[in-house]
Amino acid sequence: MRRLRLDLAYDGGEFSGWAAQPGLRTVEGELSSALATLLRASEPVRLTVAGRTDAGVHARGQVAHADVDWAAWQRLPGRSSRSPEQAAVARLRGVLPADIVVRRAAPAPAGFDARFSATSRRYLYRIADDAAEHDPLRRRDTVTVDGMLDVAAMTAAARELEGLRDFAAFCRRREGATTTRQLISYAWARLPDGVVAGMVVADAFCHSMVRALVGAVVPVGLGDRPTEFPRSVLEAQVRDPRVKVMPAHGLSLEEVTYPPDGDLAARVETARSRRGAGE
Amino acid sequence: MRRLRLDLAYDGGEFSGWAAQPGLRTVEGELSSALATLLRASEPVRLTVAGRTDAGVHARGQVAHADVDWAAWQRLPGRSSRSPEQAAVARLRGVLPADIVVRRAAPAPAGFDARFSATSRRYLYRIADDAAEHDPLRRRDTVTVDGMLDVAAMTAAARELEGLRDFAAFCRRREGATTTRQLISYAWARLPDGVVAGMVVADAFCHSMVRALVGAVVPVGLGDRPTEFPRSVLEAQVRDPRVKVMPAHGLSLEEVTYPPDGDLAARVETARSRRGAGE
Repeated sequence: MRRLRLDLAYDGGEFSGWAAQPGLRTVEGELSSALATLLRASEPVRLTVAGRTDAGVHARGQVAHADVDWAAWQRLPGRSSRSPEQAAVARLRGVLPADIVVRRAAPAPAGFDARFSATSRRYLYRIADDAAEHDPLRRRDTVTVDGMLDVAAMTAAARELEGLRDFAAFCRRREGATTTRQLISYAWARLPDGVVAGMVVADAFCHSMVRALVGAVVPVGLGDRPTEFPRSVLEAQVRDPRVKVMPAHGLSLEEVTYPPDGDLAARVETARSRRGAGE
Repeated sequence: MRRLRLDLAYDGGEFSGWAAQPGLRTVEGELSSALATLLRASEPVRLTVAGRTDAGVHARGQVAHADVDWAAWQRLPGRSSRSPEQAAVARLRGVLPADIVVRRAAPAPAGFDARFSATSRRYLYRIADDAAEHDPLRRRDTVTVDGMLDVAAMTAAARELEGLRDFAAFCRRREGATTTRQLISYAWARLPDGVVAGMVVADAFCHSMVRALVGAVVPVGLGDRPTEFPRSVLEAQVRDPRVKVMPAHGLSLEEVTYPPDGDLAARVETARSRRGAGE
């Protein structure tokens, strides 16, 4: 057995999220059976993922790992002159549905764990306001709001949340799991197409945290709440009904970062000990 | 009656093209009945469009005009403080399906004709090759090719087609209609997301001309034809079976330009006399 690192992108619109669930179409379910087909395994290949995205959430920079039969992997190129990596990507394109793309598949360095060696996750949230040029081709990954968003006010409010903090106010509470996270960066910008984009980077996120962080800042952008509002919610450390968890389809996981290969195993120990579950 | 200029965007994926056809879902059909609803007209509002896009072709910068009942237009804001323009855009958003967006609706300047006063149309064609980061969220407006595209070779080949020329080799022949067009600019570039984009600007296009122009240049990019190939096809002035008309879903109409208001009527005369039909 050898561990593979898989880099993937998906359109989350037609999936009941990442995690395999009986009777539901999930990214993990589709990918693990595609890998089983590719490697002629008798059972679905088990996967571990960096970000367990919710139903409807997209990804352009998702990372997963799978422990696979090494002999089957090496047989992949068959009579072609391609490497197993190239053969796997090409053949997965043929096996997977059009809404999942495996961009890279390669043996992982020693100590690599897609979930626990990750040092950060970066998410993007797309919102079209009245100033944006609404593009129906992007309606599946862009949320629409009525009114104009003040991007400078949104970034000012978002920056106030950065740091190592208890995000209990933005997390669904889970028994025995910490809600402390390092919010590395949280900023907003208007993209060239007029869409307003939130960029959120943290060591890890708890369930629905990004969409709650967006929901706290959008009312500031619309002028309905003062700039201090998200910070006051954070400090109260309890869920605030004034913060709406934003719709899933505006969100995508853009990037997962890992330490240099030599530090992978040490990172896993730190992450495992710090969190019960993270995404 | 007053003439309105409508600026619109649509996802062409679920439409049988622009032009209204009995029993088929078309952009014109949806838009003209939405306008009739908006203006409480007893019949669908007749539309004239700058680019009669084919089935599956998208638009971000389409322009149309309609002659409407001026009193009904002025009544649009009702008791709100909005202008008729703002009220029309907001209410059309409620009436139209999610795959059509009217971005602006306003009285047109004197002499304006969406089709015949246009001085140029700009189209974009999106292709993902092996070097692109394939994004499943863009699969509805991006065509995939196997292999790597040489963007510099594609632009060199495309530039050779620019100028006032007879594009009979790239047009479906129509009785009594000229196939002479001014190809103002044709170039290729790799976008930040790795997608290779063809940008084509002309005074007007005949039916399926953009997709044939793309189909002539893609084999150059893949190294299957020499740089001179598209120019030699052009000069032969007959349809060449080696040129594949590329799929519709990679194409979108991005922009239509018009002369200064004072020159609109004169432009209409020139365009009408030069062409039987154009898009």
